[in-house]
Amino acid sequence: MNQDRDIVIIGCGAGGGTSAQFARKTDRKSTITVFEKSRYSQYSKCGLPYAISGIIQDPMDLIEFSENWFKKANIDLLLNTTVEKIDVENQIVIGKKDNVTVKKSYGTLVIATGAQPSIPPIQNLFRNDGLVDGVFVVRTIDDVKNILPFVQKNKSATIIGAGFIGLEMADNLYKKGMKITVVEALPRILSKTFDEDMSKVIHEEIPDDVTVFTNCLATGIEDVNGKISKIHIKNNENGDAKTINTDLLIIATGVKPEVALAREAGCKIGETGGIIVNARCETNIENIYAVGDCTEYIDFVTKKPVPVGLGSIAVRQGIAAGVNAAGGEYELPRGVLQTSTSEFFNMEVAAVGAITDYIKNTSTLSGRFNGSSLPAYFPGGKPVIVKVIVDEKTSQILGAQAVGDKAAQRINTFACAILAELDVETLRKLETAYAPSVAPTLDAVTLVCDIVSKKLKHKNR
Amino acid sequence: MNQDRDIVIIGCGAGGGTSAQFARKTDRKSTITVFEKSRYSQYSKCGLPYAISGIIQDPMDLIEFSENWFKKANIDLLLNTTVEKIDVENQIVIGKKDNVTVKKSYGTLVIATGAQPSIPPIQNLFRNDGLVDGVFVVRTIDDVKNILPFVQKNKSATIIGAGFIGLEMADNLYKKGMKITVVEALPRILSKTFDEDMSKVIHEEIPDDVTVFTNCLATGIEDVNGKISKIHIKNNENGDAKTINTDLLIIATGVKPEVALAREAGCKIGETGGIIVNARCETNIENIYAVGDCTEYIDFVTKKPVPVGLGSIAVRQGIAAGVNAAGGEYELPRGVLQTSTSEFFNMEVAAVGAITDYIKNTSTLSGRFNGSSLPAYFPGGKPVIVKVIVDEKTSQILGAQAVGDKAAQRINTFACAILAELDVETLRKLETAYAPSVAPTLDAVTLVCDIVSKKLKHKNR
Repeated sequence: MNQDRDIVIIGCGAGGGTSAQFARKTDRKSTITVFEKSRYSQYSKCGLPYAISGIIQDPMDLIEFSENWFKKANIDLLLNTTVEKIDVENQIVIGKKDNVTVKKSYGTLVIATGAQPSIPPIQNLFRNDGLVDGVFVVRTIDDVKNILPFVQKNKSATIIGAGFIGLEMADNLYKKGMKITVVEALPRILSKTFDEDMSKVIHEEIPDDVTVFTNCLATGIEDVNGKISKIHIKNNENGDAKTINTDLLIIATGVKPEVALAREAGCKIGETGGIIVNARCETNIENIYAVGDCTEYIDFVTKKPVPVGLGSIAVRQGIAAGVNAAGGEYELPRGVLQTSTSEFFNMEVAAVGAITDYIKNTSTLSGRFNGSSLPAYFPGGKPVIVKVIVDEKTSQILGAQAVGDKAAQRINTFACAILAELDVETLRKLETAYAPSVAPTLDAVTLVCDIVSKKLKHKNR
Repeated sequence: MNQDRDIVIIGCGAGGGTSAQFARKTDRKSTITVFEKSRYSQYSKCGLPYAISGIIQDPMDLIEFSENWFKKANIDLLLNTTVEKIDVENQIVIGKKDNVTVKKSYGTLVIATGAQPSIPPIQNLFRNDGLVDGVFVVRTIDDVKNILPFVQKNKSATIIGAGFIGLEMADNLYKKGMKITVVEALPRILSKTFDEDMSKVIHEEIPDDVTVFTNCLATGIEDVNGKISKIHIKNNENGDAKTINTDLLIIATGVKPEVALAREAGCKIGETGGIIVNARCETNIENIYAVGDCTEYIDFVTKKPVPVGLGSIAVRQGIAAGVNAAGGEYELPRGVLQTSTSEFFNMEVAAVGAITDYIKNTSTLSGRFNGSSLPAYFPGGKPVIVKVIVDEKTSQILGAQAVGDKAAQRINTFACAILAELDVETLRKLETAYAPSVAPTLDAVTLVCDIVSKKLKHKNR
């Protein structure tokens, strides 16, 4: 039996599962084996918050590709199986299931070990082997199953971290009638994805009965009989301390790439802590690919390494690694656009490319446009606020951010413009679709470019 | 007084009105005069159908820039004033208001005379000086005011022409409880904007109690005491004739550019019947610009002249002509993308670039994807159907069409891709925004490109 083309994948998240699927699409014959340490087949991590509010009725509904699906695709999915070592020399993956060793040779290997929640140093957070009762991260179906009994109307929930996941959790718990407090260490919400002014626009739309503390660190918690009861927070700037009663604490302060196996195997780890991969998702080791949250990639705009923290990128890497590992040919663009979106408190937000903070070495100009989704005379128009950032010298579009109606699809147009390296003078003349009941004659997408174009002309006078 | 820079504009529709506005923005001092033959200031023609159903409560609400607005902008708007002649040699526009001659010198002139409804030869359609009672076109606020008394629940309305306006009128009359018949001479609806398969997809979504006859010509009408009572139609293919009782007849069979004045002035008229203009909206005559429905421009994809039949293009030309006529500098892209959208019978449709019928000399490949606006596991996803057409040799994107959720914004991304001359291999790897409650991991926009990419590879094997 020729094992040269056997494909092994470690991890069945978005990146690993997609790798398996595309390996199978590319090569109908090779053996494909997926090691997955949890008991769950490929599911949507991004959907977890919605299983809290009940929008997704059962956390198990998040499973996108069942064990049976993999079986039908002739992919060996080994659940509850932890990989302990990659024997690079002999091209063997060594794992364990129920204390029984499982060995599998590979022709090509895809590492998709994901990431672990990054937990800030908070006093008394741990008890015995794990977190105090009522304290959770939101990474797995089991996390959601464990959180659900704590979701009770009129009780209090505190969320640490005002990124997308933190705010999505806040919204979904708010929908269940909980009293919500959000604690963010940085001076503003969503600081990785939006500029300061856009963060402010979004912050102002959060309902008044949701308390948001920015610039605040969680310093410690108190428990009663092992169940959380209070959280202590402290303002970074003025040192003011506060104690908040809480029945549930959600920690959503980001993740750390899970790279122990890869490092041991000799894979190069980059400055952001992720495995370094190229446009084919190859690591520095022959026949070993890596994808998803355990990797880092180059940002298209800044050309600097960034952690791959988005499911959308993991899936695209999965396509590349799967096709390539199976002998096909697939190259990703030369960088990630980090196009992202979220929706909370009845507000759609989206962004692409660099935010101003990340390109401080470049001379940039930006503009913001507050518009409507429909012509002024047509009833039912909804607010759309769009910001665009351009390179002052080249006029090239570096980033865009949007809040409001169809924010994500509007940002996709900017994503296309950035990928095509269009300058703002070209994009401002884009002929967008117009009909009174659908979109205005000149869309916010081009009107915001007009604003920047005027600033550029003024500057270059 | 120096009249060299005086700007005169003929017509206060979308093109002319926008020209005046941007001329004023560019030059704060010159005299700007707008001749408008009707009694109305700049209003939205595209909004007229919605004043029929009452979505727009009063047709007068369609006025986007009032007489007072123009006054405040220091623009002389002469309503009820018909231009009779352009004296090119002396740079004078000669018009008439209430039988009094009005003369105005110009430094630069913008012709924005729009278009006239194109009325097919239907027997007995005219009576005395105009159309038989109950027969209308939909071009002006007065048309709508005249139609409104005929809009009565349970009465019958027939619409000739199944383009955007015809179908929008059908939907708005349907909303008022009228029995609707649509008669289209060509074999399918929306044949100028959509490929046959997409026309079919759209046609199938029209409610069953709306009767659509394709391949049918209206041959004649009958009236009772001067008011329409019946329409005779005949099938183009099999000659079958039918008579339909109708209380209201709407003719929506397109327009003819209004170029009499321009022709007399010596402006070159193109093969589609519109005034030929360049990217600055200049005609062949010095100091004379033209914009909007009276012009033709080059199609970005086919590079052939096309009539400018969209308000969105008229406005963009208005910007160019206004800025240039006032001594500024503004160039449009080298062609129109013809990005367009509409919404009727609860369905959003949009398209950009060439349809297959218009590029029969090019070897093309196309693909269609039927997807959802949300991931499969998330409730509330709506259908999205996207088609893309690419050049088989260059892989360049030539056109795209969409039906369903956020069709217009999705088409804007394709518009950007066409403007940037992206090929399908690049666009299929576009990193689109993903969040479970907003958009799927891989958007229909890129998945349809995958389909075409596979076909291309198969073809080139």
